[in-house]
Amino acid sequence: MQMPLTNRPIQAAPPANPLGAMTNLLQTDLQAVNALIMQRMQSEVTLIPELAGHLIAAGGKRIRPLLTLASAALFGYEGTRQHRLAACVEFIHTATLLHDDVVDASDQRRGRSSANALFGNEAAVLVGDFLFSRAFQLMTEDGSLEVLRILSGASAVIAEGEVLQLAAVNDIGTDEAHYKRVIAAKTAELFAAACEVGAVVAERGAEECAALRNYGMNLGMAFQIADDVLDYAARRERLGKSLGDDFKEGKMTLPVIRAIARADAAERKFWSRCIGDMEQSDADFAQACAILARHDALEESLAEARRYAEQGIAALAAVGGSPLRGHLEDLIVFAVDRDY
Amino acid sequence: MQMPLTNRPIQAAPPANPLGAMTNLLQTDLQAVNALIMQRMQSEVTLIPELAGHLIAAGGKRIRPLLTLASAALFGYEGTRQHRLAACVEFIHTATLLHDDVVDASDQRRGRSSANALFGNEAAVLVGDFLFSRAFQLMTEDGSLEVLRILSGASAVIAEGEVLQLAAVNDIGTDEAHYKRVIAAKTAELFAAACEVGAVVAERGAEECAALRNYGMNLGMAFQIADDVLDYAARRERLGKSLGDDFKEGKMTLPVIRAIARADAAERKFWSRCIGDMEQSDADFAQACAILARHDALEESLAEARRYAEQGIAALAAVGGSPLRGHLEDLIVFAVDRDY
Repeated sequence: MQMPLTNRPIQAAPPANPLGAMTNLLQTDLQAVNALIMQRMQSEVTLIPELAGHLIAAGGKRIRPLLTLASAALFGYEGTRQHRLAACVEFIHTATLLHDDVVDASDQRRGRSSANALFGNEAAVLVGDFLFSRAFQLMTEDGSLEVLRILSGASAVIAEGEVLQLAAVNDIGTDEAHYKRVIAAKTAELFAAACEVGAVVAERGAEECAALRNYGMNLGMAFQIADDVLDYAARRERLGKSLGDDFKEGKMTLPVIRAIARADAAERKFWSRCIGDMEQSDADFAQACAILARHDALEESLAEARRYAEQGIAALAAVGGSPLRGHLEDLIVFAVDRDY
Repeated sequence: MQMPLTNRPIQAAPPANPLGAMTNLLQTDLQAVNALIMQRMQSEVTLIPELAGHLIAAGGKRIRPLLTLASAALFGYEGTRQHRLAACVEFIHTATLLHDDVVDASDQRRGRSSANALFGNEAAVLVGDFLFSRAFQLMTEDGSLEVLRILSGASAVIAEGEVLQLAAVNDIGTDEAHYKRVIAAKTAELFAAACEVGAVVAERGAEECAALRNYGMNLGMAFQIADDVLDYAARRERLGKSLGDDFKEGKMTLPVIRAIARADAAERKFWSRCIGDMEQSDADFAQACAILARHDALEESLAEARRYAEQGIAALAAVGGSPLRGHLEDLIVFAVDRDY
């Protein structure tokens, strides 16, 4: 990188999406993972593959399983254990999405009707439970207690993060520490675990496993903060997401927290009405964007995301120089500087 | 037993509840399990122990953890591994109850307001996820892949059973095979797994592990069928359950399935209205009970439950003669012949 990330101007052309290059490089692995996902979401209870398939086939970016594959490949691992664990990570993520949509009463996910809207909350909860159980079956088949420790721990932390987030919705007193605690648990923890198990599978020592975990944690933080910024600033269409979704749900994200910290009395009243009381008119989102701009809240949030990205890149310095390291570095830069 | 179970008249005085005697015998173990449950449901996210504690402290019968303790003790196991696994079984059960109540939109559980009614569906789903994850952390700490295989498999089967049950609610075409498939998965599987892991911990061979699994499976079937009969026939107050709950929810249980199989045109119309269309008046429950009596549907269902009980007792014949074997035999008889 020629320029320190934190100085990169927000108006610069966004970097190319490195997921394409990573997907090409890991194509054989990814196909094996996709085949496993399709195979292991099957059940004689036909509603299960129907509902799970609706979400899984809608094609998320598979970023978490890719991280497991990339991490294993980074260390030159040549076996196939990472396929099962990547599928397992995707099942945990999918189960979380299903339960999230029930919790948020969402009717859209990945640009399609959400599973709960189509199949009912009941089925979405129970199929989430099934996928979660299936993930643990896959881990058990792998047979590594270290992997089980990492992923069962991650699952517990994710659930804690989701509960913690419940308390913050519509609470304009939510501070930055609380926000970071939530996103570390509900987003970054699974990125960290996905990276770490790749290193564990490759039988690396504690230092390199910790380095990959560290990279994943920082990637997750950077990714989520940037995502929360994009809710106010995306310049291109995002899969299943519309500008202003978080605002409309009254979510206390970093840009809003920063703006509230500097709000005058009128602005505080505005946030209190829109986020606290969820009383919003059509003009309010534009007004929110104007307030965020006035306080540089988006720029500042992105600068924070970049600090995580730099820490993630620094963490990778401890591991060897495989070409995949460059891709992982590009990915964390892209996570911050994407415009969609 | 002097008299074959299947010939035991329904009017006979019900047997004493053997759970009391088992609880006394295993008191030290059970205290260790309760301490572990309280300790491991803790989280810095205070809503988690509040919500989980609401349900756990309401004091279910702890029948599933008792099965794990009894099974380990049956084989003279003298270590402490069974404590962690019994807590784990109770966590899986509690997670299932939390999600069940969301699915059923229940407002009562164990005689108190249900967790979803008090804390909201969102929190109930997420705390269920937390307890489920915690269960897998406990298993991982135990470190036996065989135990992990049994309990992750059971969890997947339970979720499948719950989804399968969704399809049967309000469907008066549900047949006995479907009903049995549902209760085997959603109820009996965890009883079976709870018993089996006790034998695994005691390092018994495949035959004895299978015998305990077999006993637990039959206990679960007998227990659930009797429970479904009691919904129409309980003579004493049952913890958190009222006479007619299943009927009011339009559940297709064995007594109803048997009665519908023999219904004349008028009765079929009655079931179709009450269960299929959920159009019920206050007098309908008494009418349902009268129809069930006319077709001996409760007696026949109990006879079916007794057949499972006999199979469970037969399964135990393969294991040694510890005093606990008698308690387990008493328990399966009680599961069928209790009047509450």
